[in-house]
Amino acid sequence: MNKLAYGMVGGGPGSFIGDAHRHSINLDGLAELKAGCFSRTFEKTIEKGKEWGIEEDRLYPDFETMAKAEGTRKDGIDFVVIVTPNVSHYPIAKAFLNAGINVSCDKPLCFTSEQASDLQKIAKERGLLFLVTYTYMGHVTAKHAKEIIRRGDLGKIRSVVAEFPQGWLAYEGEWGGKQGKWRADPKQSGSVNCLGDLGTHVENAVATMTGLKIKRVLAKMDAVVPGRVLDDNDFVMVEYEGGATGLYWTCQYAIGHDNSLRVRIYGENGTIQWFQEEPEKITVISRDGTINELHRGYGSIAPDAAKYGRLPSGHPEGWFEAMGNLYKSFINCIKAKRDGSFKPEMIDFPTVDDGAEGVRFIEACVKSNLNGNVWVDM
Amino acid sequence: MNKLAYGMVGGGPGSFIGDAHRHSINLDGLAELKAGCFSRTFEKTIEKGKEWGIEEDRLYPDFETMAKAEGTRKDGIDFVVIVTPNVSHYPIAKAFLNAGINVSCDKPLCFTSEQASDLQKIAKERGLLFLVTYTYMGHVTAKHAKEIIRRGDLGKIRSVVAEFPQGWLAYEGEWGGKQGKWRADPKQSGSVNCLGDLGTHVENAVATMTGLKIKRVLAKMDAVVPGRVLDDNDFVMVEYEGGATGLYWTCQYAIGHDNSLRVRIYGENGTIQWFQEEPEKITVISRDGTINELHRGYGSIAPDAAKYGRLPSGHPEGWFEAMGNLYKSFINCIKAKRDGSFKPEMIDFPTVDDGAEGVRFIEACVKSNLNGNVWVDM
Amino acid sequence: MNKLAYGMVGGGPGSFIGDAHRHSINLDGLAELKAGCFSRTFEKTIEKGKEWGIEEDRLYPDFETMAKAEGTRKDGIDFVVIVTPNVSHYPIAKAFLNAGINVSCDKPLCFTSEQASDLQKIAKERGLLFLVTYTYMGHVTAKHAKEIIRRGDLGKIRSVVAEFPQGWLAYEGEWGGKQGKWRADPKQSGSVNCLGDLGTHVENAVATMTGLKIKRVLAKMDAVVPGRVLDDNDFVMVEYEGGATGLYWTCQYAIGHDNSLRVRIYGENGTIQWFQEEPEKITVISRDGTINELHRGYGSIAPDAAKYGRLPSGHPEGWFEAMGNLYKSFINCIKAKRDGSFKPEMIDFPTVDDGAEGVRFIEACVKSNLNGNVWVDM
Amino acid sequence: MNKLAYGMVGGGPGSFIGDAHRHSINLDGLAELKAGCFSRTFEKTIEKGKEWGIEEDRLYPDFETMAKAEGTRKDGIDFVVIVTPNVSHYPIAKAFLNAGINVSCDKPLCFTSEQASDLQKIAKERGLLFLVTYTYMGHVTAKHAKEIIRRGDLGKIRSVVAEFPQGWLAYEGEWGGKQGKWRADPKQSGSVNCLGDLGTHVENAVATMTGLKIKRVLAKMDAVVPGRVLDDNDFVMVEYEGGATGLYWTCQYAIGHDNSLRVRIYGENGTIQWFQEEPEKITVISRDGTINELHRGYGSIAPDAAKYGRLPSGHPEGWFEAMGNLYKSFINCIKAKRDGSFKPEMIDFPTVDDGAEGVRFIEACVKSNLNGNVWVDM
Repeated sequence: MNKLAYGMVGGGPGSFIGDAHRHSINLDGLAELKAGCFSRTFEKTIEKGKEWGIEEDRLYPDFETMAKAEGTRKDGIDFVVIVTPNVSHYPIAKAFLNAGINVSCDKPLCFTSEQASDLQKIAKERGLLFLVTYTYMGHVTAKHAKEIIRRGDLGKIRSVVAEFPQGWLAYEGEWGGKQGKWRADPKQSGSVNCLGDLGTHVENAVATMTGLKIKRVLAKMDAVVPGRVLDDNDFVMVEYEGGATGLYWTCQYAIGHDNSLRVRIYGENGTIQWFQEEPEKITVISRDGTINELHRGYGSIAPDAAKYGRLPSGHPEGWFEAMGNLYKSFINCIKAKRDGSFKPEMIDFPTVDDGAEGVRFIEACVKSNLNGNVWVDM
Repeated sequence: MNKLAYGMVGGGPGSFIGDAHRHSINLDGLAELKAGCFSRTFEKTIEKGKEWGIEEDRLYPDFETMAKAEGTRKDGIDFVVIVTPNVSHYPIAKAFLNAGINVSCDKPLCFTSEQASDLQKIAKERGLLFLVTYTYMGHVTAKHAKEIIRRGDLGKIRSVVAEFPQGWLAYEGEWGGKQGKWRADPKQSGSVNCLGDLGTHVENAVATMTGLKIKRVLAKMDAVVPGRVLDDNDFVMVEYEGGATGLYWTCQYAIGHDNSLRVRIYGENGTIQWFQEEPEKITVISRDGTINELHRGYGSIAPDAAKYGRLPSGHPEGWFEAMGNLYKSFINCIKAKRDGSFKPEMIDFPTVDDGAEGVRFIEACVKSNLNGNVWVDM
Repeated sequence: MNKLAYGMVGGGPGSFIGDAHRHSINLDGLAELKAGCFSRTFEKTIEKGKEWGIEEDRLYPDFETMAKAEGTRKDGIDFVVIVTPNVSHYPIAKAFLNAGINVSCDKPLCFTSEQASDLQKIAKERGLLFLVTYTYMGHVTAKHAKEIIRRGDLGKIRSVVAEFPQGWLAYEGEWGGKQGKWRADPKQSGSVNCLGDLGTHVENAVATMTGLKIKRVLAKMDAVVPGRVLDDNDFVMVEYEGGATGLYWTCQYAIGHDNSLRVRIYGENGTIQWFQEEPEKITVISRDGTINELHRGYGSIAPDAAKYGRLPSGHPEGWFEAMGNLYKSFINCIKAKRDGSFKPEMIDFPTVDDGAEGVRFIEACVKSNLNGNVWVDM
Repeated sequence: MNKLAYGMVGGGPGSFIGDAHRHSINLDGLAELKAGCFSRTFEKTIEKGKEWGIEEDRLYPDFETMAKAEGTRKDGIDFVVIVTPNVSHYPIAKAFLNAGINVSCDKPLCFTSEQASDLQKIAKERGLLFLVTYTYMGHVTAKHAKEIIRRGDLGKIRSVVAEFPQGWLAYEGEWGGKQGKWRADPKQSGSVNCLGDLGTHVENAVATMTGLKIKRVLAKMDAVVPGRVLDDNDFVMVEYEGGATGLYWTCQYAIGHDNSLRVRIYGENGTIQWFQEEPEKITVISRDGTINELHRGYGSIAPDAAKYGRLPSGHPEGWFEAMGNLYKSFINCIKAKRDGSFKPEMIDFPTVDDGAEGVRFIEACVKSNLNGNVWVDM
């Protein structure tokens, strides 16, 4: 049997993100869903499980039972996908790691840097792989940005201006459905909403592309839409090690923005502009001002990025392919661990370490905001 | 077993289109590859088949053997996917239809209108479903165009201006690889190259979106790049039944165009602009000139189009999803035929009849061109 | 006195084009309006003339009187600007040429190739300068296209695809005001409407940028909007000397298009895309597919084009500047003729010869259309 | 004589901004250049003055002499245009105000809020008009934004995100020519460079469009390009009276940006996006997410904005027209003062009060930055 087996916690009826992970894994057909605990209501798990053709004894009433059972079965799952609200990421991830099972977990990884350190520690001790699904970094064009910055095309980075506005939570009341509800609820989302959902993507995208480490942050976080308790708009100034500066903006009431993660990187020798809503292209501007629009599939795309493309240029790839690329590397690393060929440099996906950085970024911003928008070291 | 079984003819090593069909079908996980004849060289079929986990006795040295065997097995394939060069579409499709197997075939369907009529006739007599994979019409935005034109938003259509330029065959010599080679070879492509590959997409996109029937065409077809025998640039004037007019352009040496199928439809009360390289949006201009950009996922997308979306707006879907949408309807129709719930109005994919229209369009254009660019009735 | 004196025929109350010429000439302050016959109603001419500070004895009841008077005054006008409906271009231009006065005339130049030849002949014999205001060719980016094609950046041109759709005459009845009315009236517009107004711009833009000469045309011209007598949609296939081919489209009922003159030029080594509604940029694609967006003001703009820029890049120039550039060269040539420094290569504006080409293009298209859309030699 | 007479201080050889003002005023032909002191070197003033046809006795060696002479002549200038480096704005403006002459002055108005208050006071006492040329607010689309926000289309404003990056000073050494030099020189530019040149435009654009008053600012200002003493990158967080928040970014080393003033305004019922490099359009997004692109010239443009248009839609207007619109209102107000018809609501241009706001904004930002990026009240 060539395909890996995976399980899923969360992702039951009405979950967009559960479907999204399944579609993305399906794309390459490298793993198959074999076990799950899709809902807090066992009946719903059973119903969905049957629909998806999963054997009944691998449908579980709770994640603890699942972790234990799958960790001891001979044909137990190779990895688990955690797609529950943020509050439960930590205990679930911990349970599966402790059961010796590789983990894929949605972001933000968890609520506190202590939890994050704990997960980092267990994964390291157990020698397990841990994917945190910062989807957007799976795009060929995002990987191209990373590659050409690493090889020096932009020279020293001077400034980064990045943003992630959305408009779907612009109104009071029942907008945003089930998801909008739990995101705005401190019990399920922790101390942050917008910064956790969107800000961590910005932080990760900049870190991944540029390799810059944040030294300190100054954040202003506001809950603006009437009735909201948690932040729905965030401004963050950033200083990186080495002297570069950054400006981040995230918002959930920016009517007209669907999902507008946009990163602009200004170096001494050139500029990169990347926009996740148009992931098939990347704009690279050189020292003489020439504006080059590159498309995925072009000969000039860096080979380590280009190899992830599945279609010729002009045949749009999208969000599933980006997430599929993360899973492709994750699954190949699991296989390589199996057959003894694994090397750390094979890891081409965001790990628990990247997830932990995101949690620390949130903590520092929250502290800055509480103290009147002052600088806080990371 | 909930999943359908499918087989594939063609799609071996180096075939982009074979991978593309597999990825698209994988997306929803509604069918599994169970049999195949991937190459004219049996060893290559065996090698690929093993890699993909197919049982050895369902790997075949030729399509005739495959059609016969799969047509008689109890667990035989539910449908076959034909992804060979154009020259062999007709005999392969015919063989599988005659074996009682539903067919998915790439476009152009075949070489002559006689062949096309033959396939239409057999499929009808046998009560088999026949998908011709005009991929682009699977996009939610393309379906939206069709829906709002049908419900009258644009009023009477006056003119259509559509084009499909590419640049990958702009140079003499070994550009375009294996694919570029067979497309330019009359033995494998028949009497047309560019018009067959790209022009049929234009014809189908306009027919699907507008519902207009072509009355007559006037075509100018040229082989421009040195060394080329078949057309690589085509201009076509069109008159539709009811008086609307159209202008089509396809080209393979238009440097800078990746895959630029673009359809603009001008009605008495508004305009639609649709561009397959940006399939997540569609521009609709109303009588007062207001330019509305709609995105897949918006509340204003017509329900019969919107239902195909898998992700919220701002999370790009692409080419695989478009083709996946064709297969979703095709597979659901096959299942419905099985369980007796099938109705013709469930068909929401291009059929052998659409494929036949494409072949007749090519024939009329070729005739017009041979006679000095005169009007030829369809 | 450094400024030239000019007169105007037409351009009275409600004329957009008269204002446009005055604004454009004002831009550089190289000439001043000193005489005029702005309307067929003398009172209106007097009223406007007073408003604009023109001496009363230089306001005229008809153009014949004006030509004679200004041609004999010592301080007579240096050139006349003709901005009347198309029907009167010929007699007015002829009158002023015969009075020894340089002429600036709107396009289309006149109605017949005989008239055109006549004007060419008189201008040549008299040694007078004759500007035909194909405004769009004044843009720096259009001049850049011309320069880099001339120096060979694109190699041999293979095909040109150009269009000029507008939407302002999409409806029956009183749309388009005074202008819409005379344009649709055969008595004032001659045998063509859309092709004369828009098609001549397409013809001129392609000829200017590429230097290609048209060998023959095949045109389909339709009057589509109910109640219209003259063409409001035109499709034209073109063969140029040397083997390149072209496809032109013009339309007046294309809702959503303001003034969309767009020229795309495909050469063996690259492509140019130019769009008059975004005149500050030009896209140049090189042999390897790299898409370069150049802006007016960049160091890479060809010097003979760049010299016309008045503002740094990012400070948009527009339509007035384009027309102003035509007048700048025209006025400088008139001055040079005065002081004896004139050389023919100083002419960097469309002349009576370009205007005549436009008239011949119209004639050939009309003939092609009348004969059932057949090829007609130019 | 219908035309006003104006004088100019600065704007001699090599000055882009002097030419720009002249071109813009020329556009409508409402005023004529009649006096000047174009350079600190009198010979250069004389040379330029002769070239422009100015009478020799109205060319002056220094601005004090000019103010005095023109203020006492019977045919003295109606207004003066000040286009010198920032350092001299204050004394020159003061001299002309004291001579009873209306003033048009480039921004930033002056160096300190004391100077600004002084100019406000004198202008008020003398009853003189004072235009500060924040050019971009002259665009029809910017005026439309202002009008529809004022009439409530967006509801309460929640946040503003605005930026003005440029790339022309990205390098050390002799980039940017004469202008780049004085801008980077504290003696001529005062305590700020980038924030004065670009930040004041951002501040003014937001204030003009939204009507929001700044309560306090938190600024981070950096001198990044090696060798630079004054700021070339600025991040500013803003709190407005009433609770809305803002984020501003300006930069001079952002390679690839020509002149990218961009304002995005997020209200509870909709969004406006406006970008000065594409001034002919404005995007307005309504509560239901519909994205409307409006063009200058459309029927839906607010009448008080639309009236400034000189050309139909699709005939691009640009920077000169924007500045010309400021001068049009300024000149009409001067005339109205003359003939007694003036009313304050006729003022549709940025005044000395707007200029003073800009100076106070700079002061507050500088203070915030010096004190470690803390909040400073305006």
